[in-house]
This record gives sequence, C-alpha cells and structure tokens, in this order.
Amino acid sequence: MTDDEKFLVHPELTVEKTVGFMYDNALDVIAIGFNPEKTVIFSDFKNIEAQYEIAMRVAKRVTFSTVKAVFGLEDSSNIGIIFFPAIQAVPCFLESVQTGKNVPCLIPAAIDQDPYWRVTRDIAPKLGYYKPAQIHCRFLPGLGKGGKMSASLPETSIFTTDSPEAVERKISNAFTGGKPTEKEHRKTGGDPAICTIYYYFNYLFEENNDKMRELERGCRSGENICGECKRVLAERVKKFLKEHQRKREKARDVVEDFFLK
Amino acid sequence: MTDDEKFLVHPELTVEKTVGFMYDNALDVIAIGFNPEKTVIFSDFKNIEAQYEIAMRVAKRVTFSTVKAVFGLEDSSNIGIIFFPAIQAVPCFLESVQTGKNVPCLIPAAIDQDPYWRVTRDIAPKLGYYKPAQIHCRFLPGLGKGGKMSASLPETSIFTTDSPEAVERKISNAFTGGKPTEKEHRKTGGDPAICTIYYYFNYLFEENNDKMRELERGCRSGENICGECKRVLAERVKKFLKEHQRKREKARDVVEDFFLK
Repeated sequence: MTDDEKFLVHPELTVEKTVGFMYDNALDVIAIGFNPEKTVIFSDFKNIEAQYEIAMRVAKRVTFSTVKAVFGLEDSSNIGIIFFPAIQAVPCFLESVQTGKNVPCLIPAAIDQDPYWRVTRDIAPKLGYYKPAQIHCRFLPGLGKGGKMSASLPETSIFTTDSPEAVERKISNAFTGGKPTEKEHRKTGGDPAICTIYYYFNYLFEENNDKMRELERGCRSGENICGECKRVLAERVKKFLKEHQRKREKARDVVEDFFLK
Repeated sequence: MTDDEKFLVHPELTVEKTVGFMYDNALDVIAIGFNPEKTVIFSDFKNIEAQYEIAMRVAKRVTFSTVKAVFGLEDSSNIGIIFFPAIQAVPCFLESVQTGKNVPCLIPAAIDQDPYWRVTRDIAPKLGYYKPAQIHCRFLPGLGKGGKMSASLPETSIFTTDSPEAVERKISNAFTGGKPTEKEHRKTGGDPAICTIYYYFNYLFEENNDKMRELERGCRSGENICGECKRVLAERVKKFLKEHQRKREKARDVVEDFFLK
C-alpha cells in the first residue's frame, strides 16, 4: 500500500502525515545507495502538477466497473480511492511525457501493487505509450506467527529507524520453527519452513547459499537452537541498521536533490 | 458544464482544448470589467498544485453512492468524472486554505451546477469550513424553438466572438412568438412568452421596465412585427459585441495577471 493509498483508505490520516511517510521512505531509498544522477523521487501531493494531466488522460479511459472488479471497491467507497488508480498509473508514463519520447517502464513492486499495473497495461496503448512491465519483489515476512507483517502490529516488523534494544526485543519475541522445550527440539529438530528467523536470514541477512543450507540442516537436526539463531540474526540486523541509520541521517542533506523538479 | 467536466465527459477533447476554453472564458470575464485587484482566475489543470490537497480531503468524505445518486453516474462512468465533484468543490475552500482563516464562499452559477455545491455543503463542516452559499444565475435561453441553447447547435447561440454578419443571421433565423403571416399577426398579435427575441431584450438588452412592458403590449396587440424587433435587437447586440470584442482583445495583455499565482 503506497502512502497516498493509505491516506485515502484511512480517514484519520492527514496529508501532512502521508507526505511525512513519503519523506521518510525517501531517506531510506537514498541511504540504500541510489545514485542521484539516475534517481527521481516524486510525491503525489508535492509533485501533482507534473502528474495531473497524465492522471486525467488515464482516468477518462478507466471505468468504475473496472476498478470495482479489480480492487473490490464498492458503492460505499470514497471517490478518492476510486480515482487513485489513475494517479498510481502516472509513473508508467511520466518519463515519456517529460521527454517527449516513448520510454518503456519497468516497475519493481510487491505483488499487492500488481493490479494497478494490469489496469494501466490495458489503457497504455490508448494513450500511445508502451505497456509498463513489472518485476515482483518478494514479500518480506513479519516476525509473528503466519509471517504477516503489519504496520499496525509494530512488534512484528523491524523498522529502519528501530533502536538496537527494539531489534533485540522484537527478534527475541519472534515466532520460530522451534519446539516448546529444548529437550524436544534437540530430539526432533525444528522446522525452518515456518520460522521467521530463518526467513530473515534467507531473504536479507545471509547471502551465502552454502551457509543457508547449513542453517537449515542444523535446525532440522536439532543441532541449532532458536536462541542462538536469534542472537546471530540480532547482531547482523543491529550492525546493518547502525550503518543504515548513519547514512539515513546524512541523506537529509541531499533529499531535496532527489525530488522531481 | 465547466471546461474540465467537459473534458472528462467527452473523450475526444484534449487537455489543450479545455485549457483553451478556460483561457477564452477568462478573456470574456476580464472584458466584462472584473477588477484585477479583487479577481483571481484559476484552472484545474494549470493550478492543480493549489487545489489537489483540498480535493483529496473532500474526496475522502464523498462516496460513489452519493455521486451516483446526485449526478446519475453509473458503473460504466469513468473514474475521472466520478472524482470530479471533489475538484469542483475546491473553490469553496481555496481562500480559507490559502489565508488560514475560515472565509465564507458565495457561488454565482447556473442552476445545473447546483448539485456540486449541495454535495460540498454536506461535507464542509467535516473539513471545518463554512458551507458554501449559492446564488443561481438565470439561464439565458437560446434562439431556437423551446429556448434551448447548445454549443453543439451554434446557430442557437450568439457567441462573444461572433461577427456582425453572424449576429444578423442568427437573430434573423431566431424562433419568435410571431404568427405565420403578417396579416394574421396584425390581427391576432404575437406571443412574447415563447419569443426568444423578447427573452434577449428582457434578460440582456433592455434594462428599462417600462420599455419592456411597451414591447410586450406592442407584440400582443400585433402592432410590433417580428422583423422590426429582430432588427432593433441585432443593432444592440452588434453594438455591444463591437465594444466587448475590443476589450476582449485588450484583455490578452493582462490575462496572466488574473491567474492564481
């Protein structure tokens, strides 16, 4: 869910808060190392002038029937969230409009954003532009049972702004594939397939495939116990976040350079 | 129907054309004599940056059920026209937002725009602003039978850019309350209640009530014949338009001063 989508769904959110989320996300993007020469960040609210005409061209060609069917909207949905797919489509065409050339667009996004690009692909030829292409990011699971991560359950997510203490607490409370007692675990082994700690290593904090296989073997055999896995993961997360947060603070000095002019 | 509403309803219209209509309308407004010190003209497309946040605050509080019921929209309506009432509501709150004070808003508009302000009145208190008030302009009837004026039937309307020849032609072809023959007319009299020429005098080109009463009496008695009424009206319209078109050309030099900064 993008920041502006959040704003339209949650009546308690203000424009200031959503622009704040956008700004915070921009700091993370910059801290990760995106090249300012090749990166443009824009906000629906701050940069609407560049986007509105394109959004209107899209909106004229998308019916309520379509957004109802695609997004499960209803008659009781507000007209902002109904219109939103038109705004969401804009990045697919913005560079084409700004450069006056037909520029193909590849969108890396989580799969929950997929329906927006499908609607956009349907109308792209009517606007005279290439259909956008997409590449799906994997969902990073949360730390709770079932792997769901939710901003409304902050203990199930590690935020890029979390303190070392918060990281330790969240990881030590994470749901794992371990057995209720150490004795049972040693005897029958754990289940990495349902373990959020294993996911974190696999997706983010262990790049070496041999070491991942060794982690899995050690878990299934009962050799590795959960507390040790958690301790190693917490160290790596804290190390990463310490460096990330340093870069993130430095990003405040240059963030305006990244925004669409 | 406002320019942007037209754009969203008619797929063949381009943004450039609707901005063109807006610019042309602005020239007429200035030519009529609006004071630049007290007048701000803005366009949904040119000035969206000042309007989008307000439109989003409105849009969050208006459902599709409401716009469906109020404007007769359907599932097959495009999501731009569904969203449009949120944009149309913006002028009611723009000055309040820009000045940081709660400024009451009075809207002079034709009655076909009334539903927009009714929807806006419903949500104004939720945004913390005064409900807008409205004053309805009279519909100026067209020159065709039944008094309907339509941009798609240009012979039924006199445009502010029409040539003297066009004015004469349109008025000479106008529908009147006269009888088929002069003989019959002289005998039984005409009917000013259905006469478009009479309407034009009444609404725009004869301010003196005594003279209007005399016009009506002369028509009903058969003393006045249609050709003469048309000749007098055409002279007044041509005289007005000659002066208006001169001011309208001069307005091109100052039109940018009127636009929202």
